[in-house]
Amino acid sequence: MEKIPTLADIEAAAERIKPYAHRTPMLTCQTIDQMLDMQLFFKCENLQKVGAFKFRGATNAVFAMDATAAEKGVATHSSGNHAQALALAAKIRGIPAHIVMPETAPAVKKAAVAGYGAKITFCKPTLEARESTLAGVVAETGATFVHPYDNTYIVAGQATAAKEMLADEADGFDVLMAPVGGGGLASGTALTARYLSPKTVVIAGEPTGADDAYRSMKENKRLPSINPQTIADGLLTSLGELSFAIIRDYVQEIVTVSEDAIVQAMRLVWERMKIIIEPSSAVPLAVLLEHDLGLQGKRVGIIISGGNVDLGKLPW
Amino acid sequence: MEKIPTLADIEAAAERIKPYAHRTPMLTCQTIDQMLDMQLFFKCENLQKVGAFKFRGATNAVFAMDATAAEKGVATHSSGNHAQALALAAKIRGIPAHIVMPETAPAVKKAAVAGYGAKITFCKPTLEARESTLAGVVAETGATFVHPYDNTYIVAGQATAAKEMLADEADGFDVLMAPVGGGGLASGTALTARYLSPKTVVIAGEPTGADDAYRSMKENKRLPSINPQTIADGLLTSLGELSFAIIRDYVQEIVTVSEDAIVQAMRLVWERMKIIIEPSSAVPLAVLLEHDLGLQGKRVGIIISGGNVDLGKLPW
Repeated sequence: MEKIPTLADIEAAAERIKPYAHRTPMLTCQTIDQMLDMQLFFKCENLQKVGAFKFRGATNAVFAMDATAAEKGVATHSSGNHAQALALAAKIRGIPAHIVMPETAPAVKKAAVAGYGAKITFCKPTLEARESTLAGVVAETGATFVHPYDNTYIVAGQATAAKEMLADEADGFDVLMAPVGGGGLASGTALTARYLSPKTVVIAGEPTGADDAYRSMKENKRLPSINPQTIADGLLTSLGELSFAIIRDYVQEIVTVSEDAIVQAMRLVWERMKIIIEPSSAVPLAVLLEHDLGLQGKRVGIIISGGNVDLGKLPW
Repeated sequence: MEKIPTLADIEAAAERIKPYAHRTPMLTCQTIDQMLDMQLFFKCENLQKVGAFKFRGATNAVFAMDATAAEKGVATHSSGNHAQALALAAKIRGIPAHIVMPETAPAVKKAAVAGYGAKITFCKPTLEARESTLAGVVAETGATFVHPYDNTYIVAGQATAAKEMLADEADGFDVLMAPVGGGGLASGTALTARYLSPKTVVIAGEPTGADDAYRSMKENKRLPSINPQTIADGLLTSLGELSFAIIRDYVQEIVTVSEDAIVQAMRLVWERMKIIIEPSSAVPLAVLLEHDLGLQGKRVGIIISGGNVDLGKLPW
């Protein structure tokens, strides 16, 4: 298994990405606070570069490489935010990025990755095709494979979002919440809380239609995400070995939510907070809207994971 | 004419609204910077309370009132952001707010104003009906009329947005831009620039379909907005006496833009910056997209005036 990031790894990540990543703002919203009778703080990673927290991990991974390895570039398979993040981080460092994408990926995502100067290799939209195509690309180019979450540097990078939240709010948080897909953000957040604010409870939100992390926690064993169905398209993937090991030990609870609650939470944030968040980002707030977790009066920090949505296809 | 706010008035406004208003973030966007070859800074008043800069002026006006006057409340006619802003400011101070709205106002706007506890009086959708209804309300209640922009306290309040921008960017701005409707924001911005950064050029953007400020500047006389047609529904009103006097002397240029450019700029901000801005807010960026003002390489601050849009009726 990849190494669990130490506090020093997270601090190094924060220093490493500082010149390149936005220090995103944390917003509050009285209306939502009053609806829920809590004090909520929204860390806006939708305002991060490439519109997602993924830029943190990708930048940390790219800039941690030694010069010899870096020269040969990085590679990954993704059609989502990680691909864009890795492409931009590589562009900034001036090294090649090779992205394996399913030929069925939306044109806008292909264009975004290409726009950052990455070399795209298309493959059939199956896990096998993706992995074999990536293996081919790595063998041919010598590029370093940067997994979207099963990677120490990636998790350490994602952990820096919660670190900034703690730095910005001297009174800290009773609870920190993040969505869970592959688990990079949830595990990074849990590590930061454990190292820097052990009293803070970490709760992850997951769509009922893609509840592999919930089931994995329950059965204490990493279970795959089989045929996931959710509008939260950033949360379709299964946990990694590394993220599961961290989440199992340091995330106190995973709570699942309905699709309706996700759309309702997403629209509420758009309407009341005036920020564009993708469905995956709405999952933690959906948890609070749909379930009474007894958090009335508490200080709850929520990481808004990203804001990449197709404005021509909104769910309302 | 109402008094032109002094620097001391603006400083007092900043202190007065500090406990109530958000100190909104200023965001940057590399993609748009590269498109335009400028360094842009977006002051996000869409993230202000009630989703618009109007909360600044309204709060300043409400909290500047002496106790005797305040007890009788405030009144205004508006179906837009000023109504919500005044209603919320009055609610915070614990005084009545009387809002005269056309019976044709969108249900969502009526609900928002009512939600802040204001008393709404409906009238026919004509200027005469609005003014006579308001006069009746004021006569009956003794409330103080707070004009949306032709008011020293309102202009001083709106001026605080630019003041925060200057405080946040030690290197200052070559240019500050705001949209111009009634002129409260544009005039406040121009005053702040004149007092605190006289080298900064102030440029206002206006829709071609509602170009009364442009025409007023050209003819050096305040001209009314006649049958304005624009998607930028916050910019339909005519300049006030006060705002015209300030804009005439301290705004260097008013530039008009097409509806297409407004929608294009609005969508660009939604897609690349992940924030929700209303059409009026897109006007200054539309100016830069549609016209070459020779600002390449310059530091340009843009005030994003608000984010109140109907998410069910988007212009794309």
